[in-house]
Amino acid sequence: MTDAPRFVRPVTRSADVGLAVTLDGPLTLDCGRTLAPVTIAYTTCGTLNAAKSNAILICHALTGDQFVASDHPITGKPGWWTSMVGPGKPVDTDRFFVICANVIGGCMGSTGPTEADPATGQPYALDFPLITIRDMVRAQKMLVDHLGIDKLLAVIGGSMGGMQVLQWAASYPTRLRAAVPIACAARHSAQNIAFHEVGRQAIMADPDWQGGKYATSGTSPSKGLAVARMAAHITYVSEAALQRKFGRNLQNRAALSFQFAPDFQIESYLHHQGSTFVDRFDANSYLYITRAMDYFDLAAEHDGVLADAFKDSPVRFCIVSFSSDWLFPPSENKQIAHALNAVAAKVSFVEIKSDKGHDAFLLHEPEMFDTVRGFLNHVAMEAQ
Amino acid sequence: MTDAPRFVRPVTRSADVGLAVTLDGPLTLDCGRTLAPVTIAYTTCGTLNAAKSNAILICHALTGDQFVASDHPITGKPGWWTSMVGPGKPVDTDRFFVICANVIGGCMGSTGPTEADPATGQPYALDFPLITIRDMVRAQKMLVDHLGIDKLLAVIGGSMGGMQVLQWAASYPTRLRAAVPIACAARHSAQNIAFHEVGRQAIMADPDWQGGKYATSGTSPSKGLAVARMAAHITYVSEAALQRKFGRNLQNRAALSFQFAPDFQIESYLHHQGSTFVDRFDANSYLYITRAMDYFDLAAEHDGVLADAFKDSPVRFCIVSFSSDWLFPPSENKQIAHALNAVAAKVSFVEIKSDKGHDAFLLHEPEMFDTVRGFLNHVAMEAQ
Repeated sequence: MTDAPRFVRPVTRSADVGLAVTLDGPLTLDCGRTLAPVTIAYTTCGTLNAAKSNAILICHALTGDQFVASDHPITGKPGWWTSMVGPGKPVDTDRFFVICANVIGGCMGSTGPTEADPATGQPYALDFPLITIRDMVRAQKMLVDHLGIDKLLAVIGGSMGGMQVLQWAASYPTRLRAAVPIACAARHSAQNIAFHEVGRQAIMADPDWQGGKYATSGTSPSKGLAVARMAAHITYVSEAALQRKFGRNLQNRAALSFQFAPDFQIESYLHHQGSTFVDRFDANSYLYITRAMDYFDLAAEHDGVLADAFKDSPVRFCIVSFSSDWLFPPSENKQIAHALNAVAAKVSFVEIKSDKGHDAFLLHEPEMFDTVRGFLNHVAMEAQ
Repeated sequence: MTDAPRFVRPVTRSADVGLAVTLDGPLTLDCGRTLAPVTIAYTTCGTLNAAKSNAILICHALTGDQFVASDHPITGKPGWWTSMVGPGKPVDTDRFFVICANVIGGCMGSTGPTEADPATGQPYALDFPLITIRDMVRAQKMLVDHLGIDKLLAVIGGSMGGMQVLQWAASYPTRLRAAVPIACAARHSAQNIAFHEVGRQAIMADPDWQGGKYATSGTSPSKGLAVARMAAHITYVSEAALQRKFGRNLQNRAALSFQFAPDFQIESYLHHQGSTFVDRFDANSYLYITRAMDYFDLAAEHDGVLADAFKDSPVRFCIVSFSSDWLFPPSENKQIAHALNAVAAKVSFVEIKSDKGHDAFLLHEPEMFDTVRGFLNHVAMEAQ
């Protein structure tokens, strides 16, 4: 007997949890295939002004979604970036109109492997085409067009969100005034590809994955997906933070158990990360989105010269990195700044001292808040 | 239908592949249980002199074994440390008598979960007691006693082998002249426990693991064990080495495939690491040995004061670490040196510049070879 599927795609088309638009397309993808129609699930916060000049697009990370500043419909938890986005926050929704869209390939309502393939009426599963960061950005541009916004005030995102920000600036330089890529890189490193491949192998090794067709099999590769999440989670946190937070502390016990059940707090913490993740995320989406990150290499689109991606760019950049981020270390963020300097683009670069690792961009980091707030004030003034 | 088990325990009791001794015991373990009898599979190289004063014990790492300088009976490959151990090598078998024993809990002939439980005649599987680094060292001491060696010239090992070296010095300070712990720590960090737990979860999530009873079920958790190995392998290599060696190079193709099969060389390399590992290693042994490493905390045996583990120690120490080792970073090796300094022990500490990461201790590192050669020369002279 197999477990019942734990992940159930939520209804995201009702107004209380978010919006969704289905556009005719076609959206031609990097792999050569097309999607038509294309559904994009998104949320908005704040009010679009009459000039449509105050719109900011937020791009989410690998396991994020469109619920940037509103409660998550599955977990009931607050949005994933309420510290950054909201009334009076650095991305101030009293002033700005904030849009956040679920990436294509995702599992929160945008077209992806959990959605029905129009050709068969069945979930796409692995028949869904492989998508890239550029394809995600193409879909977002379709949404921005649909909303009638000529020029975004800014595009902002961390991690995979930062990759999308860079791609926006490279693909549509006249459609945004400012770009804030945080804790990211212009290409995925060998080590990062390696960690992603471990996660994918963990999912595909789970017999309940059923070659991707678990939705129609009534199974769910929860164990494999949990292992993938646990492995990935380690990379989101710094060694120092793990040591400070957990060290070798035991979980609800005074002595080692001499059993294989979790003895250490760090083990229980990882288990919790795994089990809560599978309740809200889809295994095939995890495969597709990690692959999109692995494929990301902005320089490759420009014969290996990253600077050429930003030649004559009118965009103003603000690059933010964190000292203890070992997934996207400051050196990789700095390479983006170097490339921008090489073409005399307007760029500022900040390396924030933090021991919180990659996840710092989602946490309480006052220097990041001040940086983004100050940068957006400046950009908004320039735009007037 | 399930795959046939790929891992088959080799016969290690014939002279051509190694030696084994079965001792009555009992060996009382840290968990309170006892093993009786205890089989220890080992190899020797070189000749024990009449005074029995030239014996060096080599301790192997997590996935190592007793075949330190002789061909491996399953893979046919040369021993795992032929660069360090052999005629004319830093651990010169023309001069020294080298002993290397498979740890208890291992799968190359020493008493472990793959062996028959005398109480049932069936493989122990998870009925095998949890063992610790100190238990491994207790078993090694039984072997050294059996060989009639009063005092080892040196105990040497890297990674988990280094943990055993430290434990030897702490538990039996009068039984060794010198200790060479390489690329190790006096306690396993939260991050390292986390990576091990991911590996264990990957194994236990594999339905072919069968609650550990795969040997009697005719199954083998090869997929789970391969995922565990892949995740662990990333931690053995530095980010710089992965980038230098693989970068984003594609494997036998000119362009991205837009499929989930390996596109990148780093992916193929990881798959290879996983698949060759399951041919030579046992999944339950992997659970037991990783747990032993997680439990290691030498200071904990001494009320949290590491220095007290080495109080009045007559042992001479040579600690070797590698600059790019992020599994056991130089700072953790240095803590051992600090503790030894605090009790005025004889200690030298070397941090070798290398971009090869943790695995540097197994690779061509001339500075390590020179350090170990020089140190052993000195110790051997003192011993005369």
